[in-house]
Amino acid sequence: MFSKILIANRGEVALRIIRACHEMGIEAVVVYSTADKDSNYVRFADKAICIGPASPAQSYLNINAIISAAEIADVDAIHPGYGFLAENAHFAEVCRECNIAFIGPSPEAMTKLGDKAKARDMAVDAKVPVVPGSPGPLSDEESGRKLAREIGFPVMIKASAGGGGRGMRLVHNDISFRNAYQSAKAEAMGAFGNDEVYLEKFIENPRHVEVQVMSDKYGNVLHFYERDCSIQRRHQKLIEEAPCPVLDEETREKLCEAAKRLMKNAKYENAATVEFLLDKDRNFYFIEANTRIQVEHPVSELVTGHDLIKMQIRVAAGEELKLKQKDIKLNGCAIECRINAENPDMNFSPSPGPVDEFFVPGGFGVRVETFIKQGSYISPNYDSMIAKLLVHNNTRQEAIATMKRALNEFKIGPIKSTIPASLKILNDSDYVNNNVDTGYVERKIYPPKS
Amino acid sequence: MFSKILIANRGEVALRIIRACHEMGIEAVVVYSTADKDSNYVRFADKAICIGPASPAQSYLNINAIISAAEIADVDAIHPGYGFLAENAHFAEVCRECNIAFIGPSPEAMTKLGDKAKARDMAVDAKVPVVPGSPGPLSDEESGRKLAREIGFPVMIKASAGGGGRGMRLVHNDISFRNAYQSAKAEAMGAFGNDEVYLEKFIENPRHVEVQVMSDKYGNVLHFYERDCSIQRRHQKLIEEAPCPVLDEETREKLCEAAKRLMKNAKYENAATVEFLLDKDRNFYFIEANTRIQVEHPVSELVTGHDLIKMQIRVAAGEELKLKQKDIKLNGCAIECRINAENPDMNFSPSPGPVDEFFVPGGFGVRVETFIKQGSYISPNYDSMIAKLLVHNNTRQEAIATMKRALNEFKIGPIKSTIPASLKILNDSDYVNNNVDTGYVERKIYPPKS
Repeated sequence: MFSKILIANRGEVALRIIRACHEMGIEAVVVYSTADKDSNYVRFADKAICIGPASPAQSYLNINAIISAAEIADVDAIHPGYGFLAENAHFAEVCRECNIAFIGPSPEAMTKLGDKAKARDMAVDAKVPVVPGSPGPLSDEESGRKLAREIGFPVMIKASAGGGGRGMRLVHNDISFRNAYQSAKAEAMGAFGNDEVYLEKFIENPRHVEVQVMSDKYGNVLHFYERDCSIQRRHQKLIEEAPCPVLDEETREKLCEAAKRLMKNAKYENAATVEFLLDKDRNFYFIEANTRIQVEHPVSELVTGHDLIKMQIRVAAGEELKLKQKDIKLNGCAIECRINAENPDMNFSPSPGPVDEFFVPGGFGVRVETFIKQGSYISPNYDSMIAKLLVHNNTRQEAIATMKRALNEFKIGPIKSTIPASLKILNDSDYVNNNVDTGYVERKIYPPKS
Repeated sequence: MFSKILIANRGEVALRIIRACHEMGIEAVVVYSTADKDSNYVRFADKAICIGPASPAQSYLNINAIISAAEIADVDAIHPGYGFLAENAHFAEVCRECNIAFIGPSPEAMTKLGDKAKARDMAVDAKVPVVPGSPGPLSDEESGRKLAREIGFPVMIKASAGGGGRGMRLVHNDISFRNAYQSAKAEAMGAFGNDEVYLEKFIENPRHVEVQVMSDKYGNVLHFYERDCSIQRRHQKLIEEAPCPVLDEETREKLCEAAKRLMKNAKYENAATVEFLLDKDRNFYFIEANTRIQVEHPVSELVTGHDLIKMQIRVAAGEELKLKQKDIKLNGCAIECRINAENPDMNFSPSPGPVDEFFVPGGFGVRVETFIKQGSYISPNYDSMIAKLLVHNNTRQEAIATMKRALNEFKIGPIKSTIPASLKILNDSDYVNNNVDTGYVERKIYPPKS
């Protein structure tokens, strides 16, 4: 087992990893930027090394500085957390070259799964359902229309070089196909200088459902069930829960096994999340894989009772997963609310500054992940997430009650937080009745302001 | 269901009950003494009523003031918490006379089980093992010696009117019986003006093991397994855990069923704890029953997943327990450390005062119960317990690792706390190896200072 780990990250996840290290008897070394010098997570580490100024490019994304710190501290391994360098294959490669274990997948697996087109091909190969569509750019209108009929309307026509919604058209039937095809091509050419377009089935009002997986070096792959992350605003997850409340046992089994097949096919090691869209008929479609631990991993920890960060460390150190799939049981319901230093009434604008008041809820079923304490200063330089509030209870209804109670207790001031936004959602009948999808928050709770 | 509950208590347990009320949609009314005016628990209540000055006799023990508050607030029920009036049968009776539900047993059941001699008789009647001994005072030396031989040495001779160790003699054999008998009688006469003595088997180095039970008005009785509370100092519990780490499945079943039999026999309603001594051969002996929720109840909540305070409220409101015994599963290991504002290096002397620093640990497997926040003031008027730190993990070894990590993170200053004492115990090989009994702390960790 490792004796010393460097954490190439900051804030909440740095403390999460420090905690796992300490429970395993491993020394935890953190890096910090000058802006984080007094940050509370730093003082829980056994050693802390300054790696540069506030700007992430010069500190938390600065591979040279981080590798130097790892060499100075003489660590066995680096945990990248999430964000920053966590999905940077080059960084994983440099670690390998320096003989420092990277607590995550190999650079090769990261590269393959990180490329959406390659990941899709691997999914198809592993018989994991993907969003049906054209294998590549459409050669002409007629073959496009034919394919659209085959996969079923509505479909999306998307610019191959596209992004940001440009060169994108939603088509509901045969008749409107010509117009959409031509205007998408024209817009793509105007926007990207490339008029290639491809076709994809349009999944209406999908849920975002993702499967937590963990693999070792010996080909053992385990899943830790799914998380439902449909509560998003501008593609940012706000609230996550496990299990997905609309999934039946049979679909759950199929979904989780599909995620495992993809991991096996990719010869993947360590933690990953396989993301799917779930339509209202409970068909699921692979969209992408995240080759790291995720913000919302504690949701899965609560419903299964297993510590995923410790497991990541063990697997990276070459231990075999001794746990059997049949012994991983789904127990009750867990919900996570991300507490961001943002003002929901001002379009979720960041609300950095000093934290003069901070009371963390506790009691039955409550887990808090935060590095903040009264007197902390929220830096404007980094992600606005300052805490994760998690609850676990026997039923979804009870978990919602516990979460509402805990949110009401959580006192953060004078900076603004997303606590009121979470409460607004948890008090909404559509949330309570499982009548949500990835568009729900922006449609009903916080419509975008023009 | 009740719509409004008055909490006749303060501090940590008041907040615990407020939380349960809020999750159930019930209004929580607290009472407070002038010393607790600014205490943090008060502001989480929906209504707060001052009931008198700091002295408990004039506030938290003042039945008239509390009943007046209940009438002013127009509550349906009163939760007494633990301590103060929780085991005062007269208070429970006054509540009944005022048509306010008392969230606890009937005054009759409380009286019967609260009287040690009567409780013992009921236990015998219910075929629950008790510490063998004379049914009443010894009539003479010879019959005492005969009984001692029957139940087996060593035995204790105890003053019937006794307490505080006076009139008490430990006897290891037949020969020393006479001397012990005569000197115990003489000492009892001198101390209590009554020379009656009785005999009890001396349980050598016992563990303190207690069973959590819950009963409804319809004769349903459930147990929530046992807690081991052997880590005590001067009969004050410091660390509790579940399950008892030295109990085999068969003894556990017998122990828990014995506790249920006693409750059935007493026609008991609501939560109770049945306390036993466990000897090194895993024989258990009933010692007493506590007719209230206990400080350490969250330990049982963690290993079973059930909220005992909510259950108390439901049962008191007349709901039937729908849960079945077979569905209450023991899951993993939970440990509680009581965090007291005391200085372990100064013979655990109270350490009241302002709390300038307060960082509460969190993360995987951690539950905290506290009403304190940075800026709180610890009053010298009340119990020194300011927080309960609980952990839950898959194995005892992992739970200990989590607890040590969490204790190291917990920052309280400048007042002194029992955190270092807990760490000292958790780092001791005898604790880790289950080689403890109720005398362990004073024998090995904190020998009494002369």
